[in-house]
Amino acid sequence: MIEDPIRSALDAGKTLSNVWIMLGSGLGLEIAAHAGWDTVTIDLQHGHGGFSHMVAMITAADAAKTPALVRISHNEPGYIHRALDAGVQGVIAPMINTKKDAADFASACKYPPVGARSWGPVRAALITDGDYTAHANDWTFCCAQIETQTALDNIDDIMSVDGIDCVLVGPNDLCLSLTKGEKLDINAPEVIEALDLILAKAKEHNVYAWCFANDAEYARMVAKKGYQIITAGADVGFVAAGAEAALKAAFDL
Amino acid sequence: MIEDPIRSALDAGKTLSNVWIMLGSGLGLEIAAHAGWDTVTIDLQHGHGGFSHMVAMITAADAAKTPALVRISHNEPGYIHRALDAGVQGVIAPMINTKKDAADFASACKYPPVGARSWGPVRAALITDGDYTAHANDWTFCCAQIETQTALDNIDDIMSVDGIDCVLVGPNDLCLSLTKGEKLDINAPEVIEALDLILAKAKEHNVYAWCFANDAEYARMVAKKGYQIITAGADVGFVAAGAEAALKAAFDL
Amino acid sequence: MIEDPIRSALDAGKTLSNVWIMLGSGLGLEIAAHAGWDTVTIDLQHGHGGFSHMVAMITAADAAKTPALVRISHNEPGYIHRALDAGVQGVIAPMINTKKDAADFASACKYPPVGARSWGPVRAALITDGDYTAHANDWTFCCAQIETQTALDNIDDIMSVDGIDCVLVGPNDLCLSLTKGEKLDINAPEVIEALDLILAKAKEHNVYAWCFANDAEYARMVAKKGYQIITAGADVGFVAAGAEAALKAAFDL
Amino acid sequence: MIEDPIRSALDAGKTLSNVWIMLGSGLGLEIAAHAGWDTVTIDLQHGHGGFSHMVAMITAADAAKTPALVRISHNEPGYIHRALDAGVQGVIAPMINTKKDAADFASACKYPPVGARSWGPVRAALITDGDYTAHANDWTFCCAQIETQTALDNIDDIMSVDGIDCVLVGPNDLCLSLTKGEKLDINAPEVIEALDLILAKAKEHNVYAWCFANDAEYARMVAKKGYQIITAGADVGFVAAGAEAALKAAFDL
Amino acid sequence: MIEDPIRSALDAGKTLSNVWIMLGSGLGLEIAAHAGWDTVTIDLQHGHGGFSHMVAMITAADAAKTPALVRISHNEPGYIHRALDAGVQGVIAPMINTKKDAADFASACKYPPVGARSWGPVRAALITDGDYTAHANDWTFCCAQIETQTALDNIDDIMSVDGIDCVLVGPNDLCLSLTKGEKLDINAPEVIEALDLILAKAKEHNVYAWCFANDAEYARMVAKKGYQIITAGADVGFVAAGAEAALKAAFDL
Amino acid sequence: MIEDPIRSALDAGKTLSNVWIMLGSGLGLEIAAHAGWDTVTIDLQHGHGGFSHMVAMITAADAAKTPALVRISHNEPGYIHRALDAGVQGVIAPMINTKKDAADFASACKYPPVGARSWGPVRAALITDGDYTAHANDWTFCCAQIETQTALDNIDDIMSVDGIDCVLVGPNDLCLSLTKGEKLDINAPEVIEALDLILAKAKEHNVYAWCFANDAEYARMVAKKGYQIITAGADVGFVAAGAEAALKAAFDL
Repeated sequence: MIEDPIRSALDAGKTLSNVWIMLGSGLGLEIAAHAGWDTVTIDLQHGHGGFSHMVAMITAADAAKTPALVRISHNEPGYIHRALDAGVQGVIAPMINTKKDAADFASACKYPPVGARSWGPVRAALITDGDYTAHANDWTFCCAQIETQTALDNIDDIMSVDGIDCVLVGPNDLCLSLTKGEKLDINAPEVIEALDLILAKAKEHNVYAWCFANDAEYARMVAKKGYQIITAGADVGFVAAGAEAALKAAFDL
Repeated sequence: MIEDPIRSALDAGKTLSNVWIMLGSGLGLEIAAHAGWDTVTIDLQHGHGGFSHMVAMITAADAAKTPALVRISHNEPGYIHRALDAGVQGVIAPMINTKKDAADFASACKYPPVGARSWGPVRAALITDGDYTAHANDWTFCCAQIETQTALDNIDDIMSVDGIDCVLVGPNDLCLSLTKGEKLDINAPEVIEALDLILAKAKEHNVYAWCFANDAEYARMVAKKGYQIITAGADVGFVAAGAEAALKAAFDL
Repeated sequence: MIEDPIRSALDAGKTLSNVWIMLGSGLGLEIAAHAGWDTVTIDLQHGHGGFSHMVAMITAADAAKTPALVRISHNEPGYIHRALDAGVQGVIAPMINTKKDAADFASACKYPPVGARSWGPVRAALITDGDYTAHANDWTFCCAQIETQTALDNIDDIMSVDGIDCVLVGPNDLCLSLTKGEKLDINAPEVIEALDLILAKAKEHNVYAWCFANDAEYARMVAKKGYQIITAGADVGFVAAGAEAALKAAFDL
Repeated sequence: MIEDPIRSALDAGKTLSNVWIMLGSGLGLEIAAHAGWDTVTIDLQHGHGGFSHMVAMITAADAAKTPALVRISHNEPGYIHRALDAGVQGVIAPMINTKKDAADFASACKYPPVGARSWGPVRAALITDGDYTAHANDWTFCCAQIETQTALDNIDDIMSVDGIDCVLVGPNDLCLSLTKGEKLDINAPEVIEALDLILAKAKEHNVYAWCFANDAEYARMVAKKGYQIITAGADVGFVAAGAEAALKAAFDL
Repeated sequence: MIEDPIRSALDAGKTLSNVWIMLGSGLGLEIAAHAGWDTVTIDLQHGHGGFSHMVAMITAADAAKTPALVRISHNEPGYIHRALDAGVQGVIAPMINTKKDAADFASACKYPPVGARSWGPVRAALITDGDYTAHANDWTFCCAQIETQTALDNIDDIMSVDGIDCVLVGPNDLCLSLTKGEKLDINAPEVIEALDLILAKAKEHNVYAWCFANDAEYARMVAKKGYQIITAGADVGFVAAGAEAALKAAFDL
Repeated sequence: MIEDPIRSALDAGKTLSNVWIMLGSGLGLEIAAHAGWDTVTIDLQHGHGGFSHMVAMITAADAAKTPALVRISHNEPGYIHRALDAGVQGVIAPMINTKKDAADFASACKYPPVGARSWGPVRAALITDGDYTAHANDWTFCCAQIETQTALDNIDDIMSVDGIDCVLVGPNDLCLSLTKGEKLDINAPEVIEALDLILAKAKEHNVYAWCFANDAEYARMVAKKGYQIITAGADVGFVAAGAEAALKAAFDL
């Protein structure tokens, strides 16, 4: 068996913290991880980084002994297996809107008989001491991002796909979709309602529920609701806020 | 003439803020710069980055319209001209301890007759509309880092070298040197005394005086003394502090 | 509002020049841009470059104050938002052959309600001073490349898709397609006829019309027809022609 | 005409050896190639490497005068033309399971009238002395990977697609698929049977037959069957086996 | 205290195996390390790699829980502190021929009062939980490479420099030097004699003794003599030998 | 023996053309080389590129079958052997001003007994079929750049150093030095006079004479004088001139 700190903690009822990495820097990831976050997301959708950066960041997370997930830029098998083969435990696919989206995603994440992931896990097998192929389907953590009206409409279909381990709610995009672009307000009633629905459905379908939070208050709110993994910070935000605060503190600017 | 925002501001009596970039990311640099810092330092001595990162960060600083300086990893002509040719206005050489160190540094920074910088400023000439060669010696901003007992012993010799435009005090290394490794305390009396001496000497020799500050309090203290450029934050610190604060705010950890 | 030099000039009746960058070098891009071109295309379809090169080139275009467009290698949402999030104003998708192609492309380029672009414009928001989300749909410049018989057959359908701002004619591929691979002659009657048709349709559908020209003569010809953006040179061609001419000039070879 | 060492040798009845490169290193590729392998595969599906690595490895193969093929990570036109434009002779698309998969793949590989490959072969034209466009369809070597039950079910449809030059059998994935994930044994009877079927069909459809072999014994076995190209080693395997053997030889560990 | 697996093992009388990495690949390093080697050398003198590769490989060694050393390309302070700041435990400087070479090297490796290493260990402090500065001088492992007649002539001077922790014998260069370029034979009597002398001197001066061995036989020989760290394999050799053996095994070539 | 196209041609009385590469692009290098230049210089002093770019460009030159030289950024052994180990035939060191500069340079370029180059030519040995070590001293082509008054003063001393194969005159820097920064005019009488002196001395000392020419006229002039290698173009110049000419040709700008 491969050690699975994510499921172990979740199944023990722990809420897992998650920090979001967008600068593409392995060093930045390690610095953030060392603050004590339970998990780290390497964002290749809205964050920076090519293949080399992804591998460097996955390796940096291993060095920091922090479980990592990669958010790929698009639900495409090549992105999925390149991340998984590089040894990351989790993959997040954005914009999973339909049963077909979810099935394609899960199929690329899981070996037969669950899916049709192509075999060749060089680094993944290495860092799990060779036990990888037999346990991969149970170990890899595949997260479907729910962030549109269409996804809500298909929520049961999506969650019932075999191989989908977790759903990640993106409240920013969800708001844009639910309000047809009228606002970008993650506290909008439509969004809060959707958060409740998704969480209830996740429990029903026995998939883990994760929420991206723009700030600490939101993180506390969704934690209270029962979300199990909560993103509550991003490196780009830390730099922006820190740069502003330091300038003000030193120069009153 | 090439626009010279650094000397213009300093000669008008303004204290310039400076932010330190160590992650090697052009995006990180831009985010920090957009907070409003007057200048940005690309640290290649203790910060991360190879040649491509340096060029990317210099270009990012240009895009952010923020004057940039590169701290090279060692006082070596190849490092100096590669930074200057790439269009950066300033170079900081660490560990300038003797007149010879300063003379070697200035010689690599300035074209004849001041020095012996090799000619070939491809990007530098491009971004300054071709006026570069004639004005480079007046425009480039060459900063000798003063951070050891030996440098203090040779302070007049160092500052009297033609082509040295500025001195940058590194109080951390200075403390390690002055106390022979006994402490790392930038408020140690030996350090404060040295700060005063260096500033007085800088005025005497007509070179600009810059101080690296570990925090805002120190920045205010050295600004009050009369230091003209003050570093008061670093991207790695912003990530570390932000990651810690966000975790605590959201999860009470 | 975000400054929009492309639409401002076009709407004022100006023909915009465009230079094509294929070497993947930010320095090369800046050198070409400084010659005075109105816009620059970063070609990731037939040109060289991974994610880091793309960001470096977009940043270099910002430093050179020249509006840039990225030609992605395939009509895929991940490519589109990664380019747009990095702050580029325009995206060109090759091989837009059907209404579905155009709709998928526009959907990835525009936020709701026009499309379903995923939100997270870190660098884009930064360089537009935070005004990005509200104005992005009006500002981003999304160009569908028309280069096959199929596209001609579907030209009204393609141009009527909401969010398609411009069409770019690729006469080389168009000729290969129209002549079923028999020739590669951008002056072939079929191609010229198609150029006229596309231009007329563009006016009818109120989308801008852009043409790639292999040489100056062609550029003049399509400008005379009324094309509004005209590509008339590529870095790889400049190197090839320059290397040949310099060798001949110096050595009679 | 462009020299075509692959087809020349195959048509003369030679069995071609192939070595698999997964480390992403041009130097590693050259070292392996210099051992005398007939061809080299740059694996971007399960191997490491971004765009820069791909170009570096293709160039390294040219320097080593060894014909190269790129295995792309997914059957997507952008990956295909970027590899071909960079001058590689062959492309392998994984998971070609249906006639549509094969047709999409061939279409992206071949110019009209065979397919709809987009034109712009900068490096490819350069290294073939300008003769590229006219001869590309005959020269490029497009290999469909057969590795699932579905592919076997559609084998005639796949092989009859115009532009598919070769089929590559991946026995590891084939076994996972045929046994519904029960085992990973390339000697399983189902696999051997499939190997025979694919080879017979390849002869019937006049496409070349290639097999990936995990070891020398398997290589000899499939060579004996009549497979024409045989992969019999990978750089990652050489490092793993060499590192283990050297440690044992020197330290009895 | 920082855990020090190198000195712990050596002081307990263990002979440490070392594998040499020249391909510049973090994945290659991890594969080699997982075979069970006690330590790994990242060779930036004759091996491939820029700054990014160095950081990636140091991080990969951390992920593989294998102590790493970097051989820098030249005895220059910038190279030394960039490697140490990135968190590597050991640095090897080639061509340490004189007392001054050794003193310069040690000075750049050790903080005051032993040397004058510049302070700023961002990643190093991170991965050692903040204890770095106080313990760095005892923890970092600084290895002077002895490989010329001049070095032999100055062996006592070199070894008596405070801060030199270990000497590494390079028998290939040593042979070229001792025989004035006449042969490259690591079994030459002059070389063997020098090996004995260096080992005896190392014991006398209380520095660790390391030898690079071209093959297992040589490794056993120098281990028997008493060398404490022994390099007995390199990734480039594994690829070369593996590629040759696999070709021969499968195709009798 | 290793094939030596540079010396073969020079000794047969041929004047060799040389093109200068500053963009750091292997593709750019190949395009330039394919125009028919005899040799290519990879400029890492005033041109762009880190270690990876250097290796990519050396490999590209091999693929283009064009002998390459690397101009290092500073006369430092680490730069020299990294270039030579990567397989390049020639190295140019800038600013060789004294006998010591020349001796240090030659020592790093040549193995004992001529110099003290460190041994480990992985790629170099590979591409020369293993014959490298025995023939390297005769094959590598080590060029000292003469570009200051001091160098002229020491010209006999410099040229008499064993291992210096060629001198390269940099007339731009030479003019800045000879006129103490007063002008940048490669036709200044002081420069022309120096060109004659250097050429005469080169013949006397039996070293090859190379001149960098800013344009074709200058190239013809120095060829007529008897210079044997002549640089007559640079990729950055080709892009700049081509971008300007194309804009003017198409748009009258």
